[in-house]
Amino acid sequence: MTEHTVKSFDDELTHLSNTISRMGGLAEAQLAGALQALANRDSDLAVRIAASDAQVDVLEQDVQHFTVRLLALRQPVAADLRHIVAALKIASELERIADYAANVAKRSLVLNQQPAVKPVGAVINLGRLVQTILKDIMDAYVEQDVAKAIGVWNRDEEVDDLYTGLFRELITYMMEDPRTITACTHLMFMAKNIERIGDHATNIAETLHFLVVGTPLKGARPKGPSVEAQ
Amino acid sequence: MTEHTVKSFDDELTHLSNTISRMGGLAEAQLAGALQALANRDSDLAVRIAASDAQVDVLEQDVQHFTVRLLALRQPVAADLRHIVAALKIASELERIADYAANVAKRSLVLNQQPAVKPVGAVINLGRLVQTILKDIMDAYVEQDVAKAIGVWNRDEEVDDLYTGLFRELITYMMEDPRTITACTHLMFMAKNIERIGDHATNIAETLHFLVVGTPLKGARPKGPSVEAQ
Repeated sequence: MTEHTVKSFDDELTHLSNTISRMGGLAEAQLAGALQALANRDSDLAVRIAASDAQVDVLEQDVQHFTVRLLALRQPVAADLRHIVAALKIASELERIADYAANVAKRSLVLNQQPAVKPVGAVINLGRLVQTILKDIMDAYVEQDVAKAIGVWNRDEEVDDLYTGLFRELITYMMEDPRTITACTHLMFMAKNIERIGDHATNIAETLHFLVVGTPLKGARPKGPSVEAQ
Repeated sequence: MTEHTVKSFDDELTHLSNTISRMGGLAEAQLAGALQALANRDSDLAVRIAASDAQVDVLEQDVQHFTVRLLALRQPVAADLRHIVAALKIASELERIADYAANVAKRSLVLNQQPAVKPVGAVINLGRLVQTILKDIMDAYVEQDVAKAIGVWNRDEEVDDLYTGLFRELITYMMEDPRTITACTHLMFMAKNIERIGDHATNIAETLHFLVVGTPLKGARPKGPSVEAQ
């Protein structure tokens, strides 16, 4: 293999990392926009966020085609192979994250047809927590920082606890005032979407650990056998 | 390439197809079990179904490792490459389908702690429809039957319509009797899980079309910009 070919393969791997980082940035922006649309009852923004989901989908397709080509042409082994497989997995997680953010935006459109209800604030708080987790895991990816990835992994329990409390709050709220049932059921699905974004950030943490260290993250996943798992 | 090597590659592709079929069978069994547990308020069965999800996860891991190895060692092109990439995608869809079925089972455990509510029947009807769709798409995969795949793809709208009607029914039911709110919110998430299984069957139809015909399924996806998309 000539020096030129080796350099070009490095360039290809860098291109792959950059595409993943860009997808991460777009996914973060989607979540931020969805939360802003929810907080401000801003239907115009919600429509834009819902439509922007296609950008992330296109990038995921790019990553899929690019990695299949790399695998076929370069026959990578060891760390290079892990790098490529990790990129494929992380792209898929980010696509789903952006998809969930788009869903939050779509539901906020429906919510805006209902009178405002108080638990919106709690859903936004959950969103803010998951935003920091998503930011941290993408920083960890760029810096190949395993300690930061483990930190993200450990915070999934915090998200689950906040979500479970919110779920109960919404049930109580609906029981006390059945006129809020429609709005609260949509908030419930939005909270679930946000909680799932946290799960996917945790998946990225696991993939990142495998990428850098070469072994799976030890120990049981930091969550119980929750009935809210999906 | 010797005849032996060629034959061995065919064997590998057949092994891949067989593993996908087996995953499909397990996913179908998981959904059937979850619906039975729900219909009969059978908590023992629900626990077994929730635990069986791990089997499908293991098979998906197998498919991932096997396909990466095939891509690296065989450098397949054209139809063989499509076959391998399709297997990877379909395995991922089936893993998610089994995951959603496990979630239906887990939620039925929670539901069994509440008095029975009438809309359970409508959720089971939705499940029966999605069961036939899942069966049809796995038959289409085994037979490489594109017409059947297109049939599945077209039926996603039916699932969405039934789901939307059910969502409204549950809201009405909760408003009329707020004591049913907890049970009905769990039924709502179960219905959403089942509707998502239908979406993943539709994804498999699209992948199968690409696998056999070599082009994407033409025309817009047979569903509107639903707020219930996730």
